Amino acid sequence: MKYFIDQLQQKIEEKDSRICVGLDPHLEMMPENVLAAELLEDIETNQKEIADSVLKFNQNLIDAVADMTAVVKPQMAFYEKLGVPGMECLWQTIAYAKTKDLIVLLDGKRNDIGSTAGAYAEAYLENKKIGVDSITINPYLGSDGVLPFLENKEKGAFALLRTSNPSAVDLQDLKLDDGRTVYQAVGDFLQDLGRDYLGECGYSNLAAVVGATYPKELKEIRSQLDSVFFLIPGFGAQGGGAADIKAGFDEDGRGAVVNSSRGINFAYRQEEYSYFGAENYAKAARAAAEKMKKEINDVLK
Amino acid sequence: MKYFIDQLQQKIEEKDSRICVGLDPHLEMMPENVLAAELLEDIETNQKEIADSVLKFNQNLIDAVADMTAVVKPQMAFYEKLGVPGMECLWQTIAYAKTKDLIVLLDGKRNDIGSTAGAYAEAYLENKKIGVDSITINPYLGSDGVLPFLENKEKGAFALLRTSNPSAVDLQDLKLDDGRTVYQAVGDFLQDLGRDYLGECGYSNLAAVVGATYPKELKEIRSQLDSVFFLIPGFGAQGGGAADIKAGFDEDGRGAVVNSSRGINFAYRQEEYSYFGAENYAKAARAAAEKMKKEINDVLK
Repeated sequence: MKYFIDQLQQKIEEKDSRICVGLDPHLEMMPENVLAAELLEDIETNQKEIADSVLKFNQNLIDAVADMTAVVKPQMAFYEKLGVPGMECLWQTIAYAKTKDLIVLLDGKRNDIGSTAGAYAEAYLENKKIGVDSITINPYLGSDGVLPFLENKEKGAFALLRTSNPSAVDLQDLKLDDGRTVYQAVGDFLQDLGRDYLGECGYSNLAAVVGATYPKELKEIRSQLDSVFFLIPGFGAQGGGAADIKAGFDEDGRGAVVNSSRGINFAYRQEEYSYFGAENYAKAARAAAEKMKKEINDVLK
Repeated sequence: MKYFIDQLQQKIEEKDSRICVGLDPHLEMMPENVLAAELLEDIETNQKEIADSVLKFNQNLIDAVADMTAVVKPQMAFYEKLGVPGMECLWQTIAYAKTKDLIVLLDGKRNDIGSTAGAYAEAYLENKKIGVDSITINPYLGSDGVLPFLENKEKGAFALLRTSNPSAVDLQDLKLDDGRTVYQAVGDFLQDLGRDYLGECGYSNLAAVVGATYPKELKEIRSQLDSVFFLIPGFGAQGGGAADIKAGFDEDGRGAVVNSSRGINFAYRQEEYSYFGAENYAKAARAAAEKMKKEINDVLK
């Protein structure tokens, strides 16, 4: 039995890559040769055809980046939007990623009271046919909403700590009477709770999500929490750069992965990669992933 | 165009009922005549058969309580646990509830950054074939994670404020430097944000979830927030009683619905209703719903 967090750390080192490739099929950004625009005029009627196109798109993306990423992260909202066929597409995407020996981090930000959180853990982490390795969760309900996701030590959970969006400040930055912010208190809470789930690498199966778009906070949270592994979203399309995320890693360049979704999935739409053309979207994605991988490794040297 | 919250208030008055019936198919509690226990030995293989049984169970429950409840609330985790067939069952359950003219509150506690929150809203609130009326959300990401769920004024969102579980205290009860608790600050945040979405009834399409298991807090939150409608879970199986939830309503007995899931779904397993027998689970559910409806109306008189 190998702890989730040790599996993740090992795969990162094998591939010498600290990137996480999000699989966020924004339908309106899909290449026309994969998804005919007229199908989007009535999404509910065309769910099955659209979902089939998304699966093909995802499989090509996974093939293109599998040797240079440890983790892929499907964002559930985009699959749920396609109803039942969308969920079929999600499960097929997960299964395909597992055939490529990738770690799958399901981005669903699930949360509920204990017995229901347990049902979510069973739904995704404990599925015996298609294993998801880890899931994002929202910690607002406290420990009994978090612990069910940690029961199986081969699986992991990434709890929201400081998110990457502009309105993260609304509640997460409120000041407590002990001087901490709410997000710092969430950080302490996660680190304490995670101590019973520490892998050999020194990090816990209970990881956290900390946005790349707030570099000052990222640095401060890293120094506050020495056993909490970070998923750092917000790189690329949301505005975070390699210099911004350096502070999220420990001194040995460990303890974090950096996510990009749109910036890789739809790289063919960026001027820098437009020479590939829409039909070569997967090659464009590979080029963008390669560049991101290198930028992060360079800044950590 | 009628605001979601006015539709809800009207239906509550029509039926003179302040209950919400959760549809939480805990598989191990299902009657043997509906779901054969041996199917549960390998849930992944038997997903389709189990989901078909759950749908039949839900349809019978809905038939049994449709005249005495304004709202039904399927808890998504229990459907997601059954994979793709589970999501088919969820959508069929929603569609069936709509044929009975019930308001459907989908309990998924969804949350994400703006563009992704928008995808969740499209997935459920904006589906043109099967309309969900409202959804539970988690407010931790702040306003840009909440507003996409309010765009359509015929639909509503119920944001977690103070949850019903024991560890709600872990983060929600932390004290801020201005003397408020985190959950009180969340309450103010939701009331402020909801002011642009007020219906004629004086309440907002942005409603909140406040547990029945903390009566003191419930009372205090009601007096703090005069335009936020409450969903009050935790009645029955989780320990809250009719006297506990009275404080969640306004002086006119408006402004809240009280949820019970297990206490109604599986009433046949309680000593009080065991005389119905497992095969009459729907009749037992009706009796439990009737009693709950009356207890709440009595305490509000």
